Amino acid sequence: MNVVEIIQKKRDRIALTDEEISWLIGSYTTGAVADYQMAAMAMAVVLNGLIDEELTAWTGAMLKSGDVLDFSDLAAPKVDKHSTGGVGDKVSIPLAPMVASLGVAIPMMSGRGLGHTGGTLDKLESIPGFTTALDPARFRSVLNDCGLVLAGQSERLVPADRKLYALRDATGTVESIPLISSSIMSKKLAEDLDGLVLDVKVGQGAFMKDLSRARQLAETMVGIGTAYKVKTVALLTAMDSPLGNEVGNANEIIESIEVLRGGGPADLVEVTMALGIEMLSVAGVEANPDAARDMLEKARTSGQALELFARVIEAQGGDPKVVERPEAVLPSAPHKAEVGAPRPGFIATLDAFRVGVAAMRLGAGRERKEDTIDPGVGITVLHKPGNEVSQGQPVLSLTYRHPARLEEALRVLEGAITVADEPPRGQSLVIDRVG
Amino acid sequence: MNVVEIIQKKRDRIALTDEEISWLIGSYTTGAVADYQMAAMAMAVVLNGLIDEELTAWTGAMLKSGDVLDFSDLAAPKVDKHSTGGVGDKVSIPLAPMVASLGVAIPMMSGRGLGHTGGTLDKLESIPGFTTALDPARFRSVLNDCGLVLAGQSERLVPADRKLYALRDATGTVESIPLISSSIMSKKLAEDLDGLVLDVKVGQGAFMKDLSRARQLAETMVGIGTAYKVKTVALLTAMDSPLGNEVGNANEIIESIEVLRGGGPADLVEVTMALGIEMLSVAGVEANPDAARDMLEKARTSGQALELFARVIEAQGGDPKVVERPEAVLPSAPHKAEVGAPRPGFIATLDAFRVGVAAMRLGAGRERKEDTIDPGVGITVLHKPGNEVSQGQPVLSLTYRHPARLEEALRVLEGAITVADEPPRGQSLVIDRVG
Repeated sequence: MNVVEIIQKKRDRIALTDEEISWLIGSYTTGAVADYQMAAMAMAVVLNGLIDEELTAWTGAMLKSGDVLDFSDLAAPKVDKHSTGGVGDKVSIPLAPMVASLGVAIPMMSGRGLGHTGGTLDKLESIPGFTTALDPARFRSVLNDCGLVLAGQSERLVPADRKLYALRDATGTVESIPLISSSIMSKKLAEDLDGLVLDVKVGQGAFMKDLSRARQLAETMVGIGTAYKVKTVALLTAMDSPLGNEVGNANEIIESIEVLRGGGPADLVEVTMALGIEMLSVAGVEANPDAARDMLEKARTSGQALELFARVIEAQGGDPKVVERPEAVLPSAPHKAEVGAPRPGFIATLDAFRVGVAAMRLGAGRERKEDTIDPGVGITVLHKPGNEVSQGQPVLSLTYRHPARLEEALRVLEGAITVADEPPRGQSLVIDRVG
Repeated sequence: MNVVEIIQKKRDRIALTDEEISWLIGSYTTGAVADYQMAAMAMAVVLNGLIDEELTAWTGAMLKSGDVLDFSDLAAPKVDKHSTGGVGDKVSIPLAPMVASLGVAIPMMSGRGLGHTGGTLDKLESIPGFTTALDPARFRSVLNDCGLVLAGQSERLVPADRKLYALRDATGTVESIPLISSSIMSKKLAEDLDGLVLDVKVGQGAFMKDLSRARQLAETMVGIGTAYKVKTVALLTAMDSPLGNEVGNANEIIESIEVLRGGGPADLVEVTMALGIEMLSVAGVEANPDAARDMLEKARTSGQALELFARVIEAQGGDPKVVERPEAVLPSAPHKAEVGAPRPGFIATLDAFRVGVAAMRLGAGRERKEDTIDPGVGITVLHKPGNEVSQGQPVLSLTYRHPARLEEALRVLEGAITVADEPPRGQSLVIDRVG
């Protein structure tokens, strides 16, 4: 095989064979294909795309670049959920214990926050003692004991993706539906799943701002999952304003626990329920959406999901008392500041992107991969779109540690709140379903 | 400046500013922009192109990456000629002394052969003692003394091109009109020329097989030259069968000397004359084509061009007796073999590409940059397209050193000669003129 000829084929829109793709990804992983060659290839893929057969082969080659988990000895159906990332999107944290408490095994591997979006791992690590870096044996034992494990991805899973993602980040080749899809799906397929539910976020605060592109991403990922015989469903959900009322880390854990106590903000519960219904369906536990909703509702109001969450926290080294007295256990920064409504009326928009960037500036997120997270800072949404407010009435409350960072955050938030004379039309957060 | 944002702009077909391009090429030359980043950029340029303003800036940035020559103290007009490369294309060797003998200063910088095409430097180096590696002082003194110098490119001229070309070669990003044009033109603009004549080869034996692409390349290069106030003209010339009768190195020098003695094959003389007329025109020496033709004809029949060639050879360390007794001075391999006509009739085609590859296999060219050249091997065309031949009558004569290499060459030549019942229609080798 000749890497230049393979690049030239893709450049000239000639479909690559399975063997060529497998050789390319394998050789890139070992270093026989150089970064500069893969960078040219990645740009050719960004601009010329991959056809379905190529994409299946590409994902499979990524998957085979490292270890693949084997849960075939587990009796329970194995299901995971993945979100493309949003602001205030802590859905995985209440959702996973709810679904796991209903007999679904969830070997959940999550990511870290970057830019304006938060990461499940960072949020979980705000629980004192909680570790998401589990070796394979411990990962296995937590999953066996609890039916749920909440971990970071092992370095040995899909090393091609780690290498390729870093390269894409440095070469302007991130924005490609085939490359995004194969990156996400190769990691999920390495988890040996029976079913997968994808939450593809659309809107100002999402990676995909455009509905048709988001739909294309969802369809592409569902296509890959199906090709690998994993029951895959994607929901397209709105990410124009932050999900729930909390944006940060420790404060998002508190809000997640509220959901697991039967409460929580309506929008967060709506998305959590919708995804939970799909998870129970792909798991083969309950195909009827109304029945599934009842089961999930019971799981969170009865305390069984919360109890399971506490067991997982303990199994992963965290302080399980967090589920009883979260405010007492979790860190919080010392200072508060508020952002008021610019005029009286109904809140029309609350720009999720700006809120996400502002939270990052406070220290809740990372501008660069090497930045550290301050778990105690964040933003609380006091009034959501549709709420009536008077001029200057506090809409956002910022919890901060350093005044300089507060200033930066406030600058970002200028214009983030818009107010109208009429309330915006209420719309379902779940825009569409693919699968 | 942020390299990822610059790559993203080109990826998204947003025009880059002069400052962005200048920064990019400058940073790539110093190493601040990595090879993998430039590789992604190169692929984006291959697929999305460069608009005229970008191309002018790109070429200028390449030009400024190293030294630029200054011949402003020379009274004579400075003109060079560049060919995109063909088989048997030794035109520069007789042409340069002819034009230089008419009062045009020619600081000619040529390249080496790669693949099926030969290189002027390799051909010249078959003259015993002749060196093409001249330091700036010697380059200058040969040019001052003879009005002509025949050298390789200094390492200090356009280092960005040397680096970028190697990268493109390894990343499938060679085939791009803006990248080819800026590579050629940046090197020529660094020669501080008043005029430039380009020979853009079209056909089976050329880099551009397609007339419309070749025309686009010619127009693009002429556009760049004009933007930099260098009078630039391009001729599109046919490269379907080898130019002249000799393909190799020493044998091409012999044929070049024949032209400088007033002889030489008609096709080679036709192209040499056509390019010479353009050189005299852009030099401002003679604008009338008929008058220019007479001057050139006189230069080669009077012996004045040959005498100048001998002086240049001597000034560059070579044996000037080569112009009197080339066969005695130049090396020749010991063995001969012939390829005959497959059937009686008129030769219809003589595939320049296959003849070029066969000559390379004999040792006259390089498959890889690091290969060495055997100056004494080559192919002589005994009958050109249009000639009538009997079955088996020798059409090609191969001069070889190693039987194994002969075998490889003969295999390549299978099917290279086609014979028809009627002679092909005679066509001018000069297809079009751009400028």
